[in-house]
Amino acid sequence: MTRSADRMARIQPFHVMALLARARELEAAGRSIIHMEIGEPDFVTPQPVIDAGIAALQQGHTHYTPAVGLTALRERIAVFYRERYQVTIEPERIVITPGASSALQLVMSILVNPGDAVLMADPGYPCNRNFVHLLNGEPRGIPVDASTAWQPTPEQVQAYWDGKVAALMLASPSNPTGTLLGEQDIRRIYEIVREHGGHLIVDEIYHGLTYGSAAQTALAVSDDIFVINSFSKYFGMTGWRLGWLVAPGSSVAELDKLAQNLFLAAPTPAQYAALAAFEPDSIAILEARRDEFRVRRDYLLPALRKLGFEIPVTPEGAFYLYADCSRFTDDSYRFSQQLLEAAGVAITPGIDFGSYYPERHVRFAYTTSLENLEEGVRRLADFLRGTSD
Amino acid sequence: MTRSADRMARIQPFHVMALLARARELEAAGRSIIHMEIGEPDFVTPQPVIDAGIAALQQGHTHYTPAVGLTALRERIAVFYRERYQVTIEPERIVITPGASSALQLVMSILVNPGDAVLMADPGYPCNRNFVHLLNGEPRGIPVDASTAWQPTPEQVQAYWDGKVAALMLASPSNPTGTLLGEQDIRRIYEIVREHGGHLIVDEIYHGLTYGSAAQTALAVSDDIFVINSFSKYFGMTGWRLGWLVAPGSSVAELDKLAQNLFLAAPTPAQYAALAAFEPDSIAILEARRDEFRVRRDYLLPALRKLGFEIPVTPEGAFYLYADCSRFTDDSYRFSQQLLEAAGVAITPGIDFGSYYPERHVRFAYTTSLENLEEGVRRLADFLRGTSD
Repeated sequence: MTRSADRMARIQPFHVMALLARARELEAAGRSIIHMEIGEPDFVTPQPVIDAGIAALQQGHTHYTPAVGLTALRERIAVFYRERYQVTIEPERIVITPGASSALQLVMSILVNPGDAVLMADPGYPCNRNFVHLLNGEPRGIPVDASTAWQPTPEQVQAYWDGKVAALMLASPSNPTGTLLGEQDIRRIYEIVREHGGHLIVDEIYHGLTYGSAAQTALAVSDDIFVINSFSKYFGMTGWRLGWLVAPGSSVAELDKLAQNLFLAAPTPAQYAALAAFEPDSIAILEARRDEFRVRRDYLLPALRKLGFEIPVTPEGAFYLYADCSRFTDDSYRFSQQLLEAAGVAITPGIDFGSYYPERHVRFAYTTSLENLEEGVRRLADFLRGTSD
Repeated sequence: MTRSADRMARIQPFHVMALLARARELEAAGRSIIHMEIGEPDFVTPQPVIDAGIAALQQGHTHYTPAVGLTALRERIAVFYRERYQVTIEPERIVITPGASSALQLVMSILVNPGDAVLMADPGYPCNRNFVHLLNGEPRGIPVDASTAWQPTPEQVQAYWDGKVAALMLASPSNPTGTLLGEQDIRRIYEIVREHGGHLIVDEIYHGLTYGSAAQTALAVSDDIFVINSFSKYFGMTGWRLGWLVAPGSSVAELDKLAQNLFLAAPTPAQYAALAAFEPDSIAILEARRDEFRVRRDYLLPALRKLGFEIPVTPEGAFYLYADCSRFTDDSYRFSQQLLEAAGVAITPGIDFGSYYPERHVRFAYTTSLENLEEGVRRLADFLRGTSD
């Protein structure tokens, strides 16, 4: 029997994977399943980006790039920050990574010693805490709820900070709740973090997918914040595995050294393809998709509320609705299982996102067509009628 | 100033990167540089593999795959083990990873607690020890030299094992020495590792690039060995970032859980492209390239010996020659710098590979054309004549 390092007991599998496996079984047996559990856009990568990837392969771009990425791509991202956010970022501070996951790993690895704590919202993206477990650190959840739009407040950050805390991680828009932090909120929190001599990491991987006012980057607050972003969500490039990190200038040499060791470089064809992601024809496609996501949200949110799910804060970003299902169940995991078996609708139970009342919540992803969402809501309505009989 | 976790002081940058940066400077200023420091094949990915990657993109394969990889690719690799090694591997034991680097990280992460030691040959591939540092473990070098073909002996493994050791890592063919371990050597070492209740990890990323008898996989010895392989070297797919891991069946669930968290999945276009890497037309190209590497080795090895470099064991694999340069210098790093500045030849100093007499050694990579190697040898000869004047 293979030994298992201690961290493995602290790293939980995604519970939704068991549901997904069951959904695939049911589909293989001929059942129709409406997928509202999936955290990636249903759209294929925009054609101009695909075309750029094909052109790169035709030109034989199959060797390693530098560990921190293609210079042209780092420069293009810097232009993007200037155009979209009116923020100046030196290209040297941008590190291209194999997905935002690797960006997060780089940052955690240079900041966290064994035993150090990292603060983060609960509920939150499950991998965040597991990157801290990987390094034998302690992820410490700050319980958040609808009363603060599911985001930690400056007062909470102050209260949860102690001598063990090395860093705070924020996410805006948040997964699973889709809520944002304003620039002033980030500024107030950043000031508290700096007073404690800690570091602030901000996950902006759902930037671009916002349906009210555009989100401002945390880099507008300070150069001394680690910002993680990705080509996966807004840019629709999940399978290419490409993300980036903007870091304080003083830490770039350390990040470069670590990137050389941990992953050598991000995928080359993806980096060339991504150069086309910022072009007007790509952006036009992406903005049309954003409009489509908004239409889906604007359908699904009131439909779920009408069925009796409580979603007190209107999510302004990402493609998730985090819904209180306590009117129907006191066990959201069992509820998700039953919904799948009885009605063929797959959703994600709260337990994947933390330990603060997960049994009362489920996450709906609107990463499927409006037609599918409508069918899903019909099935949900029937299912809920059945369980309340 | 950004804090730096303790591990960052233990993770050394690759010293060759400074030389490489200087080489690029010289090239930008118009100097001709012969590159014999680069650890990737100079060949572009075989055209049938590129074509398969293009076809995958045209078909819109841009979404995530399962964390452990495409089922079709895992099955194809299992067939490869049967055909090439006459070894039966269940596809379920094969985990597709974003490069061999990620495979190594997965294995280390499930085996190594902070403070645990991992044994490995010194000299050896520098990232190996840094993956152990990442987890706050202790990489412990076993000093090896030409007397044992640069490989640890069973007696050494026995002598270096103590209560802190969790695992032993072997590499065959080895980087930087190009030497192999025979099946019987691996078997004897495996038995010692198991007696101690430890685990054996074998790096086989240079398999396929051998110039004598074909290397046998360590999986012929036991199912209970972690074997790391890659599409980068023999298959010529460095920039695509794709590798794989064959693991004991009992650890696959843990590896899957960790892969979901650390990197979500390997790049999708690369996985589809790799399906074509095993086809006869690709293999024909790869075998012709192997012949070309052999021609280069057969030129460079005697040429370097004639110049006065000592290479007592003929390397049978990879594309490296690890040469004793003590006839010319007692500081191989300074020697490498001077060779670059004075003669425009870039090589890798021993210090990147460990602490066992690195100052006496340099690594030559024959990842450039025979014409370039000939020019490099001419420049080396002139340089050595100059320094001996």
